[in-house]
Amino acid sequence: MEKDTNFNEWYNDIVEKAGLSDKRYPIKGMNVWTPYGWKIMRQIDTFIRRELDGTGHDEVCFPLLIPETEFKKEKEHIKGFDSEVYWVTHAGLNELDVRLVVRPTSETAMYPMFSLWVRSHTDLPLKVYQIVNTFRYETKQTRSFIRVREIHFFESHTCHVSEEDAQSQVEEDFGILERLSKELCLPYSLLMRTEWDKFPGAHYTVGLDTAMPNGRMLQIGSIHHYRTNFSIPYNITYENEAGEHVHAHQTTYGMSERLVGAIIGVHGDDKGLVLPPPVAPIQAVIIPIISKGNADVVMEEARKIEKKLNEARIRVKLDDRDERPGSKFFDWEIKGVPLRLEIGTRDIEKEAVSFVRRDDGGKGTIATGSIVEGVRLILGVIRKDMYDRAWEKQRSNVATITSLKDLPEKTLRFGWCGSEECGHRFEDENELKLLGTPYEHEEFDGTCIICGKHTNKAAYASRSM
Amino acid sequence: MEKDTNFNEWYNDIVEKAGLSDKRYPIKGMNVWTPYGWKIMRQIDTFIRRELDGTGHDEVCFPLLIPETEFKKEKEHIKGFDSEVYWVTHAGLNELDVRLVVRPTSETAMYPMFSLWVRSHTDLPLKVYQIVNTFRYETKQTRSFIRVREIHFFESHTCHVSEEDAQSQVEEDFGILERLSKELCLPYSLLMRTEWDKFPGAHYTVGLDTAMPNGRMLQIGSIHHYRTNFSIPYNITYENEAGEHVHAHQTTYGMSERLVGAIIGVHGDDKGLVLPPPVAPIQAVIIPIISKGNADVVMEEARKIEKKLNEARIRVKLDDRDERPGSKFFDWEIKGVPLRLEIGTRDIEKEAVSFVRRDDGGKGTIATGSIVEGVRLILGVIRKDMYDRAWEKQRSNVATITSLKDLPEKTLRFGWCGSEECGHRFEDENELKLLGTPYEHEEFDGTCIICGKHTNKAAYASRSM
Repeated sequence: MEKDTNFNEWYNDIVEKAGLSDKRYPIKGMNVWTPYGWKIMRQIDTFIRRELDGTGHDEVCFPLLIPETEFKKEKEHIKGFDSEVYWVTHAGLNELDVRLVVRPTSETAMYPMFSLWVRSHTDLPLKVYQIVNTFRYETKQTRSFIRVREIHFFESHTCHVSEEDAQSQVEEDFGILERLSKELCLPYSLLMRTEWDKFPGAHYTVGLDTAMPNGRMLQIGSIHHYRTNFSIPYNITYENEAGEHVHAHQTTYGMSERLVGAIIGVHGDDKGLVLPPPVAPIQAVIIPIISKGNADVVMEEARKIEKKLNEARIRVKLDDRDERPGSKFFDWEIKGVPLRLEIGTRDIEKEAVSFVRRDDGGKGTIATGSIVEGVRLILGVIRKDMYDRAWEKQRSNVATITSLKDLPEKTLRFGWCGSEECGHRFEDENELKLLGTPYEHEEFDGTCIICGKHTNKAAYASRSM
Repeated sequence: MEKDTNFNEWYNDIVEKAGLSDKRYPIKGMNVWTPYGWKIMRQIDTFIRRELDGTGHDEVCFPLLIPETEFKKEKEHIKGFDSEVYWVTHAGLNELDVRLVVRPTSETAMYPMFSLWVRSHTDLPLKVYQIVNTFRYETKQTRSFIRVREIHFFESHTCHVSEEDAQSQVEEDFGILERLSKELCLPYSLLMRTEWDKFPGAHYTVGLDTAMPNGRMLQIGSIHHYRTNFSIPYNITYENEAGEHVHAHQTTYGMSERLVGAIIGVHGDDKGLVLPPPVAPIQAVIIPIISKGNADVVMEEARKIEKKLNEARIRVKLDDRDERPGSKFFDWEIKGVPLRLEIGTRDIEKEAVSFVRRDDGGKGTIATGSIVEGVRLILGVIRKDMYDRAWEKQRSNVATITSLKDLPEKTLRFGWCGSEECGHRFEDENELKLLGTPYEHEEFDGTCIICGKHTNKAAYASRSM
């Protein structure tokens, strides 16, 4: 398994060997979440719930199916999704009068209800979210977590009294993203998508992109400001203090199972997965080092340590299988367990436990008397180191270019005059994807890489994942 | 809202007024889970996960869509579901070669994968579960949580080396049910469904039925023993110790959002919902009793109590709205909050908090110094009392009858010879549903209510919900 020489093959291999997902399900691109992968996803969902609950969002659950009549109310939206939705046309032995869309995202499911829920300015802001599966009829090659046809996903939807208030929501979303990125050890760039690449119906879209080891950017989520583009066709109005009926301004924020794909890609190595401690289903694995005559003593000590860590709510597993330690090491390395604890005769004599870090191979010992504090401390250091290294990689992955010859396998930064014409030419002639312009101000002074005009705007691009 | 005189109207009214679900979604029978209802459901899901994880089941998540070719492999199964599934026939602008079923239940999604996962007797038992939404094209009148077209649901699926081993799983499932019923304060009867009413493809089905106040039984879940009925068409075989390839025996266990419907029906009263403390999103609500000049002192005390309960992980809410206490009482009674705490000047002087129980109106005081222990204790008593009263009602709801004249509005118990002919006649001529025979042995000595033959078998029936 060589990550650097063949990333795609390495990725598929890891997903299978670590037991994250099974793609042998008889529909291409619809995969089975096997227990280990699902545990990681659910841990991520737990962080998302904590963040969204903590910022005043209410969790809801909307129906999966959307009547075609509702789906078609916003013209840009339906144009954007027409070619990639699944249609339910029959129920039982009957053909339905109105066809039903299997949700690709839930604007058109939620907004008819928002129109009933929002009445007065006192109902605003309305902030809800749901964690559900969505569906896209992908025609490109599918890949576990990264491009699938059934997508596990969270989406928050908000309504506000004004454009400014909606803009503050976007800023709050960045705060949520920042805190999530610490738990997941994932870096990101905030890029304002081009007009032709924004979400269908949005006023603007900010893409959240993480660099993969092959230099390509993976969109791990997006934040949209809709202004009143949906509230007008869906008639979401409120009575303001002056008694007038006004359209609400809306935003959404969504991230998906691609977060799992990003974790695999950013952190994994040739030995397998490397999981950030906060999302790891098993944070520490205990391997008893059995040699002649010491089995009882070692196992007793191992069970004691397991119990202590368990009680401290550290996710721990004692591997008591009848196998050689080396083969156990191998198995847990593939699965990316952040910390390995080894207990042998010599450790017991020294009243210590030996440890090996999965992320950088670092070794050491922890005094048995302070095992809980020691393990917590090291897991914290691993998280921080993984986070810092990942950001460092994300930054160093960017190459500023002034010519389109001999492009490096990196994220490209260059001047763009901002015109659609140059944007399209850039994409079409180079088989690159224009990811957009920095959301936050970035100094730049140069020329458009296509037309040569002077510009103060940098743009970013990469090959597609 | 009168529960006893018009249960159906009362039920619909409560669901709406308590804010559990919104049925104005533009597809009949597909409702929106609003925040309060969803919190109850998620709390129930948490108990289900705890029980299933604790009995060695692994959580997974299978795709929603099932190819028609897989769906049709077990003949009885497809016959049972043919008239009530939704079909995806188109994706994007294309018609699909193989139509896809939107899962009504996941046997036919899971078993092709089980056939790959199960190889050797060491892979068994295989025990997995998932918590997902399922879909039935209901043609009868829909009702929130009780008869809907998108159903929130858990399903466990297991594979075993033998019929006996599968039978032990069924017994383990009863233990799970018993523990869940304590948290949810829901009583149940275990009834072996008739041959013509068992799950399509099952060897046998045990229905888990709870009596509603209108005397009708509501199926809140079911447990199925499949023997090898599915493992043969889906080719789920294992190599036994003798090296032979043998078909696995299978079981499933499922319960749905009907649990929410049962809680509403069993416990609610004319004032609204009455929630069992373990599932209540808010377990205790604090109402400050403000009178002239005491606002600061009372609010300070209320916040102190809120903080203490919060820290003890009791789900508490301080209602600091600018409204009269009476109108606050009214609101929280509709929402079924188990315990109301009142704090006024006199309470503060006595260093106590007044409380009122939602379930039976019981009142008293708790010393402020032991507020956490006091609240915990009372919530525990409420749970136990609600559980005991519900079981008492379930038992007293049964009427043993020997004639079909002047039937009471209860669950009916009577003699049945066991023949299909008498069973069908019983159902058709009386507009009753034959629920089956007791799963556990029950003494009976009488005659078949239809043919008059002597029998030692009791059967149960009720009107359909």
